[in-house]
Amino acid sequence: MRILLTNDDGIYADGILALFNELKKVGEVTVVAPDSEKSSVGHGITLSHPIWLKKVQRKSKFFGYGISGTPADCVKFATNVILKKKPDIVVSGINLGANDGCSVFYSGTVAGAREGALLGIPSMAISLATFINPEFRYAAQVGAKLTKILFRNKLAKGVFLNVNVPNVSSTRIKGIKLTRQGKVPIHGSFQKRIDPNLRDYYWMTGKCPTAKKNSDIDTYALHQNYVTVTPVTCDLTDDQSLEQLKAWKL
Amino acid sequence: MRILLTNDDGIYADGILALFNELKKVGEVTVVAPDSEKSSVGHGITLSHPIWLKKVQRKSKFFGYGISGTPADCVKFATNVILKKKPDIVVSGINLGANDGCSVFYSGTVAGAREGALLGIPSMAISLATFINPEFRYAAQVGAKLTKILFRNKLAKGVFLNVNVPNVSSTRIKGIKLTRQGKVPIHGSFQKRIDPNLRDYYWMTGKCPTAKKNSDIDTYALHQNYVTVTPVTCDLTDDQSLEQLKAWKL
Repeated sequence: MRILLTNDDGIYADGILALFNELKKVGEVTVVAPDSEKSSVGHGITLSHPIWLKKVQRKSKFFGYGISGTPADCVKFATNVILKKKPDIVVSGINLGANDGCSVFYSGTVAGAREGALLGIPSMAISLATFINPEFRYAAQVGAKLTKILFRNKLAKGVFLNVNVPNVSSTRIKGIKLTRQGKVPIHGSFQKRIDPNLRDYYWMTGKCPTAKKNSDIDTYALHQNYVTVTPVTCDLTDDQSLEQLKAWKL
Repeated sequence: MRILLTNDDGIYADGILALFNELKKVGEVTVVAPDSEKSSVGHGITLSHPIWLKKVQRKSKFFGYGISGTPADCVKFATNVILKKKPDIVVSGINLGANDGCSVFYSGTVAGAREGALLGIPSMAISLATFINPEFRYAAQVGAKLTKILFRNKLAKGVFLNVNVPNVSSTRIKGIKLTRQGKVPIHGSFQKRIDPNLRDYYWMTGKCPTAKKNSDIDTYALHQNYVTVTPVTCDLTDDQSLEQLKAWKL
């Protein structure tokens, strides 16, 4: 199994190294990831700037390719320039911070997996639900297990998996749960601040949505210490609204 | 009708001015848009940098607020900081370049409308299918007409409209067509170039997908000179795959 591994925290992040160490037990891994942190870049791509490539060592050994772009750029670049053959699977993560609910739109890590799915490759994003004191080992093991399962089975074309893992000891994990994407929006708010030159500026901060008590929803199941697995589509057409719009007589 | 207008080509672009001039005939318009071009930033948001705000004049009159961020930032910022009340509608565009098919993932303009939809506001993105010699007037008129229709009617929560307009004279437009999002991927390729210091770099270029001959699909209908209207969902859960995944015994 030839695995393409990317992320949005950048090629020097702890999460991608932990996942690499587990994935290399189950396949041949090529790492192509942003050369610096690209959190919350969504599915952005780099069309108006040059893209630079560098080989990256970690622990004195070749680790992978650092790209001066986004996770979606990395997947495009890897499949076009670096890899001789299309990879069997694209894995993106482990992200520092959950990507449940509406985070699927903002996350560069999720976009890495989505780009794989758009290109017709089985793909998965995996994220750890914490920003502090991450313990990546269990998430990496789950990631490698799910990678094998995804490779063996077939998801519909244009569908990928979005996996979130609670940051608790493996003994406290209740299991792996199939879930739906939460729809409660992340309300950004803005702190007004003053710079050293006395000019006003703003800093965005997000309030994580309160999870509705419904364990079918990724946000709530994750809070209940389940590993959540949500199948995500790349066909955004809303069929019900298509029917409804017919009555609008456009 | 209180309209929030944004885009990804930036507050100084021609497309947003043309749309503003038509929208102000049908409602009270507040422009909050990126202070520079933010094409292809997808649904990225700015969490690790300050956000700056400036008032922008065009033609010697106050035009709107320029934000040092993405279209999604603009919608969050406008609804949090600038506007006293939630707008009745969010309109994003007119984009220079079509946003049919898989462009819904890469486009900042589409993300502006999606952010509105996530916040529970009726929203619409509108794009003109050309990069050269744009003629925005007809598209702006269609945009204002569809804005009124969207305001009068109710789309399901979390669904917004993605509108694309051919860049031909209005007499050659065949009509307004309800469509589905095309799923043919945009295959990026990379030109290898050499900089003045003799270092290799790459430049991404995209090959627009060949439209399948199916006028239900936005890409093809647009080529056939229809204005396309695609209802886009913010619930990415793939229901069929959820059923299928039950058999995987995770």
